[in-house]
Amino acid sequence: MSADFGLIGLAVMGQNLIMNVADHGFNAVVYNRTTSKVDEFLAGEAKGKSIEGAHSIKEFVDKLRRPRKLIILVKAGKPVDYIINDLLPLLDKGDIIIDGGNSHFPDTNRRCEELKEKGIHFVGSGVSGGEDGARWGPSLMPGGDEAAWPAIKSIFQSVAAKSDGEPCCDWVGPAGAGHFVKMVHNGIEYGDMQLICEVYDILKRVGKFEDKEIGEIFGKWNKGVLDSFLIEITTDILKKNDKDGVPLVEKILDTAGQKGTGKWSAVNALDLGQPVTLIGEAVFSRCLSAIKPERTRASKILPGPEIPDGAIKDKQQFIDDLEQALYASKIISYAQGFMLIREAGKEYGWKLNNPAIALMWRGGCIIRSAFLGEITNAYRQDPNLENLLFHGFFTQAVTKAQAGWRRVLGTATTYGVPTPALATALAFYDGYRSARLPANLLQAQRDYFGAHTFQVLPECANADFPAGQDIHFNWTGHGGNISASSYQA
Amino acid sequence: MSADFGLIGLAVMGQNLIMNVADHGFNAVVYNRTTSKVDEFLAGEAKGKSIEGAHSIKEFVDKLRRPRKLIILVKAGKPVDYIINDLLPLLDKGDIIIDGGNSHFPDTNRRCEELKEKGIHFVGSGVSGGEDGARWGPSLMPGGDEAAWPAIKSIFQSVAAKSDGEPCCDWVGPAGAGHFVKMVHNGIEYGDMQLICEVYDILKRVGKFEDKEIGEIFGKWNKGVLDSFLIEITTDILKKNDKDGVPLVEKILDTAGQKGTGKWSAVNALDLGQPVTLIGEAVFSRCLSAIKPERTRASKILPGPEIPDGAIKDKQQFIDDLEQALYASKIISYAQGFMLIREAGKEYGWKLNNPAIALMWRGGCIIRSAFLGEITNAYRQDPNLENLLFHGFFTQAVTKAQAGWRRVLGTATTYGVPTPALATALAFYDGYRSARLPANLLQAQRDYFGAHTFQVLPECANADFPAGQDIHFNWTGHGGNISASSYQA
Repeated sequence: MSADFGLIGLAVMGQNLIMNVADHGFNAVVYNRTTSKVDEFLAGEAKGKSIEGAHSIKEFVDKLRRPRKLIILVKAGKPVDYIINDLLPLLDKGDIIIDGGNSHFPDTNRRCEELKEKGIHFVGSGVSGGEDGARWGPSLMPGGDEAAWPAIKSIFQSVAAKSDGEPCCDWVGPAGAGHFVKMVHNGIEYGDMQLICEVYDILKRVGKFEDKEIGEIFGKWNKGVLDSFLIEITTDILKKNDKDGVPLVEKILDTAGQKGTGKWSAVNALDLGQPVTLIGEAVFSRCLSAIKPERTRASKILPGPEIPDGAIKDKQQFIDDLEQALYASKIISYAQGFMLIREAGKEYGWKLNNPAIALMWRGGCIIRSAFLGEITNAYRQDPNLENLLFHGFFTQAVTKAQAGWRRVLGTATTYGVPTPALATALAFYDGYRSARLPANLLQAQRDYFGAHTFQVLPECANADFPAGQDIHFNWTGHGGNISASSYQA
Repeated sequence: MSADFGLIGLAVMGQNLIMNVADHGFNAVVYNRTTSKVDEFLAGEAKGKSIEGAHSIKEFVDKLRRPRKLIILVKAGKPVDYIINDLLPLLDKGDIIIDGGNSHFPDTNRRCEELKEKGIHFVGSGVSGGEDGARWGPSLMPGGDEAAWPAIKSIFQSVAAKSDGEPCCDWVGPAGAGHFVKMVHNGIEYGDMQLICEVYDILKRVGKFEDKEIGEIFGKWNKGVLDSFLIEITTDILKKNDKDGVPLVEKILDTAGQKGTGKWSAVNALDLGQPVTLIGEAVFSRCLSAIKPERTRASKILPGPEIPDGAIKDKQQFIDDLEQALYASKIISYAQGFMLIREAGKEYGWKLNNPAIALMWRGGCIIRSAFLGEITNAYRQDPNLENLLFHGFFTQAVTKAQAGWRRVLGTATTYGVPTPALATALAFYDGYRSARLPANLLQAQRDYFGAHTFQVLPECANADFPAGQDIHFNWTGHGGNISASSYQA
């Protein structure tokens, strides 16, 4: 009974996270189902650190000081339940199990409840930052049984990334709130990556820049409003050549997987009725990338515009416009993400702390950026800010970006470069700032063919069309007056 | 024991469908939980028709000739299960229960299985066409226990709409296949309606046309490639004025509901990894329409371009371009819908009949159109057609439409009219015809921060980067060589 903290699961994230824990002065114990991994790890990376190994769950549990604090970092889904079931008979009341994997938040809701009944405090924590983040300071997003927080706070905040001295880790909220916020983080990550890819594609196909030049452009952007981890690594990637001098990125197969948290975010957005279109398009773009053989056949059948050399007259303007388009689209994406978080708070009865969420994402994680510092500021100034776009900083940013953003989309549209995320961002912006959308016609259609009823604009109410009531109009003159109260066709 | 066919649920769809059945020479019996509706219906619309009433489920069942054939038309969800449970003790083996509501197809899968064990043949049938369709010829999409089909085929194909003499009704496939195809139909319907609304919005805001003029434009389109029910009713709607001479559509509140089948389609597309972006954007557009108070506040804060009078120099060209943009986007939407159907067939092990599906949608239903005749032809010519866009007719149509489509999106982008569906359609087209997408960069990013690995293009394989293998590259020079085999960050 000497370890402060335990880890189950010695894949790359687990190894790095527990070394980080040890570096901060905590004694750790690790366990892995394939126990040879434990020995390899102790003889390798962990050598000389305050990390012990265990070759059985029992040995692992016995080595932890009470109340026990342990984190599970394994594949989301059934493996988490299996490990919890193995642990349960060995733990005591008041012990703390943390699931640091990418679990789906409804699973975390369920586990919290089940373990609460057994006297175990369960925490579902988002962990982001990839292998480097885990090693040197991840973003940590813990939620669940709040009774656990005082006991794990110092460990979590020690190992977490710091932004201007503040830890990128705070208590998110009850039940699955931590994993929910991690899910939204990952959805936003999908959006950010897709936006970067689209801009890269326009630079390459329309601007006819070499990868190295594009790397330099991203490098410059990384010193401005786009300053972020993803822009930084893009710069690195684009400058990396294979031995034959060909940029490595040009050799990589253009098919991206998607199965996990990005998709969950999009489904959740649909469930909660929130127009989180950037994540939706980013996920669909990965789906489209995945059917490369079909695309290859399509490329020989379906024509598109030629892109002449010299299509772009003013290259600097073109580059500056792309920077603004990327920036504005990113603002829209984060505004949408916080709309989803707001709705989840209402729907699930969670009190979620927007400035803390922005700060947790500010450093350590994949979407870390200077920009998230501005979001943190915005929510600190006004925690009840209705929409990120309403804060002066962001209103001004999109206002300034708008002309370039529109030019970029015009160029991409003309020359046939696909920009699903950039385009949906602008469509959202233009729709969001429309006091009136054409959904009036849509409602008329629904009432015409299905008697689904509509309401009138309050300013247009009259005796036939009273305000606030569901009205069915007999459009055809012969359909009768029965509205579709119990049937949706 | 005199009735050929029974109906439970006397909302507008049920009333109209059973009158349709009676008109085709069948004896019917109807039941409704609120039995006063039965009496009202028999004394009203059903007077003089071969329709009897029942005031209890038992009476209803007793009046049906064996093997009994009955359709339930009630709100999807629990009500369907309640009615089935009430029916079960009264039915005999070999009887047929048809659920004609908008049930979610997994529920239909489950009910099929449960009822098969009890010797009851269960059918889940899509019914589309709104109140008019139900009355005069709906599109019917039955699936489930195929043993039921011979017994109900003549009734179903009699009451269904006809297209060039062929009934818009055929057996779709096993289990929930009928409701699945109806779900996709509804998703496509969402897309069609959204596209029409966007075009209407551009005509109004940029073209500055009056509703009556727009109605005339739609009326002309209805005689061309866009010939369809939804264009027809849009024409009607736009010409309908209130007593004060103001177009009624201008008085309708621009907030559209969404909760049902459109959302299910989008979620299913995400689950099956199919880029069905038109439905996704159409659902999200309804979500955005729903937050009108927030949009109204946004309209006062977020600037956009002015749209001057005379923005459009050549009005006829502008109108023609819009027709082409709408047509091309519609082609994309249907191509996506059939991609989803194809994948569902694979995933769920259903043999689905594409030409039959297109024919079922050709008439009777909300998305009926001349265009679906072309789709039927395409799939009849080649039932294994990989993608609708690969058929000569559609390849030529998008080729011809392309220039105008791009001009429309350029105009909307410049003037700030939101076009989420038109834009995502073009983005899909440009992505789909791209043999290479920028997902190579995305894969590099994922491997950089999370060791998620990538593959190389086969033509670029070498000793370091072998073809067909999952490769992790040490981008940073210090991350080690552990790939993220069991953890997705």
